[in-house]
Amino acid sequence: MTQEIYLDNSATTRVCKAAAEKALYMMTACYGNPSSLHSKGFAAEKEMTAARAILAEKLSAQPGEIFFTSGGTESDNIAILGAARAKKRAGNRIVTTAIEHPAVLNTMAQLEKEGFEVIYVQPESDGNIPAAKFAEVIDSKTILVSVMMVNNETGAILPLKEIAGIIKRKKAPALFHTDAVQAFCKLPISPKRLGLDLVSVSGHKVHAPKGVGALYVKSGVRLLPNSFGGGQEKNLRPGTEGVPQVCAFGAAVQAMRPEREAEKTVRDVRDHLLQRLAEIPEVTLNSPEDALPYIVNLSAGRVRAETMLHFLAERGIFVSSGSACGKAKPSHVLEAMGLSGLRIDTSLRVSLSAENTKEEMDAFADALSEGLGTLSHT
Amino acid sequence: MTQEIYLDNSATTRVCKAAAEKALYMMTACYGNPSSLHSKGFAAEKEMTAARAILAEKLSAQPGEIFFTSGGTESDNIAILGAARAKKRAGNRIVTTAIEHPAVLNTMAQLEKEGFEVIYVQPESDGNIPAAKFAEVIDSKTILVSVMMVNNETGAILPLKEIAGIIKRKKAPALFHTDAVQAFCKLPISPKRLGLDLVSVSGHKVHAPKGVGALYVKSGVRLLPNSFGGGQEKNLRPGTEGVPQVCAFGAAVQAMRPEREAEKTVRDVRDHLLQRLAEIPEVTLNSPEDALPYIVNLSAGRVRAETMLHFLAERGIFVSSGSACGKAKPSHVLEAMGLSGLRIDTSLRVSLSAENTKEEMDAFADALSEGLGTLSHT
Repeated sequence: MTQEIYLDNSATTRVCKAAAEKALYMMTACYGNPSSLHSKGFAAEKEMTAARAILAEKLSAQPGEIFFTSGGTESDNIAILGAARAKKRAGNRIVTTAIEHPAVLNTMAQLEKEGFEVIYVQPESDGNIPAAKFAEVIDSKTILVSVMMVNNETGAILPLKEIAGIIKRKKAPALFHTDAVQAFCKLPISPKRLGLDLVSVSGHKVHAPKGVGALYVKSGVRLLPNSFGGGQEKNLRPGTEGVPQVCAFGAAVQAMRPEREAEKTVRDVRDHLLQRLAEIPEVTLNSPEDALPYIVNLSAGRVRAETMLHFLAERGIFVSSGSACGKAKPSHVLEAMGLSGLRIDTSLRVSLSAENTKEEMDAFADALSEGLGTLSHT
Repeated sequence: MTQEIYLDNSATTRVCKAAAEKALYMMTACYGNPSSLHSKGFAAEKEMTAARAILAEKLSAQPGEIFFTSGGTESDNIAILGAARAKKRAGNRIVTTAIEHPAVLNTMAQLEKEGFEVIYVQPESDGNIPAAKFAEVIDSKTILVSVMMVNNETGAILPLKEIAGIIKRKKAPALFHTDAVQAFCKLPISPKRLGLDLVSVSGHKVHAPKGVGALYVKSGVRLLPNSFGGGQEKNLRPGTEGVPQVCAFGAAVQAMRPEREAEKTVRDVRDHLLQRLAEIPEVTLNSPEDALPYIVNLSAGRVRAETMLHFLAERGIFVSSGSACGKAKPSHVLEAMGLSGLRIDTSLRVSLSAENTKEEMDAFADALSEGLGTLSHT
């Protein structure tokens, strides 16, 4: 296999050089325990402090508002379980969407078992959810609103700022959480400007290693912890910190280009892809028109996604069927959009990083055409 | 600072070459998401499978009984919360010890809040806990027994096999958990032979990176999960796996010498240290005589531990005061042993890896003597 065209960046990314080098340094040279009271511990703590400052700056936040976790899923769990359980006395309603990541949906299922009422707002057929739909369900007894910033399968952008306005207008005692895993470093995120109390982000979607994430917790917001131990991360996420990954996360975020600048590059490449796809009659787009350009969801003819995925992988082109986390299950996102079984079964997700090129889009489009020709007849 | 004598291996260890290289490879080359359905994902999954097999072999277990986590604390939380909540209907009593790591003690405190009765078995003044003490409190309504294998501050070895016998004799419906973080790769651990249902281990104590651990769950044992997401690790620990650390964990464990062989080396070095310490009249040992030789806890004259620790660190010698996780709090372990305030305030923990040498013990003993001479007069 000569070429490697990686178009599955919403599943995970290659760790960038700066992040890999930082991780290696923390593993083999600056390997002290940040809780140790000697200089070897202090050195590790200092590196963590630097990483925290980088994350804080990226989120227009204070360093004390950034909590490191083992990934997006843990961030979501700490935020959602911690907020709901802390706010129990203020009301019983939780509002989220039907198109969240399983880390949110399955955590919500747990809260339903604990007696909370969870409302799942449905998307329109184009994948978007207008803010008005949230106004119908957020009430004065709503204690938590959790809405993703960018959908991981379609790239749909959710109207967070408007939802924050609705929470305020309805006088809901709700904390407002967003799973921003697919938005982080792709859209500017200012929790203050967007009215967010809690923001989950992940390292391995932004060229940091797998196994690290962060949670922004607005100063003054109280969560009930979900795990217990040696007091690290102010008791919200105890356990010796994953220092190499945490510091690599900082290095990766620092190495990312400014969001709007990177988006411009990606949009250019994505538009080229859309042009090429428009030439293939069997292709239907599933991403909304105004989606974040990093994700293109499409359905291709009558070829099952997994079959096409293998055909492409044999040619060194890596895309996904739905999201990586859903494995072989049909996409709950496309189902919620009301797409037909055929469109769901044949759907592919192309997800870009700012490193991808138009030439790679050509290679993908060519291989897709070839696959549609070959595989449709088998 | 020319020399670096790292004697704080129970706090954390330097990542070994094989583990660091594996982590680097997984970050930059084999970077697929193990949940992805293409060959790049399969390659990552295959590496994880190999790491799981290594852990399983080390624990005389089946690969399906090994669950990767983000560290010892998470392993303890999943095991203890998951077991107690799953067994709620069978009884209300939980038995543990007063000398557990905060990851166990603070999780127990949470279970007390949830209505469970938790019994904390106290150590003798030498740091050991005889099995008979457990026989007094384990009853037919005991649903969970959690006893560490080796104490992290003194090296005391707990009588797990005898406790398993007591659980059986008392016909307790209890699951038996051990926090084996300080024992893993230092003592042979066969959960089956020891009668254990749940075993927590951590990577960064055995020359793997921080931020990875594992939990052995005996086949057939059911735990209620504590976090929710995309189904990874059979739903017990969801979230994209920390693949670089997980695979590095496998590489590190594979690189460890057999337990009894390494222990012999360490015992030799430790005995040399004890000889040297015997020459310093101000030194009192706090570790039991039959402790695992990797840990030597001692009290030194009238010099506060933190002061001595800095004195030593300035000379490139790194030890700890109590455990790293307790930070500046007085040791709950030495307190439970009934030691005087002075002995607790002046206590140092020297913790070895199989790499430490007799020359390093000499350097430590010399520096300690010098410190006692210099600092006692200030």
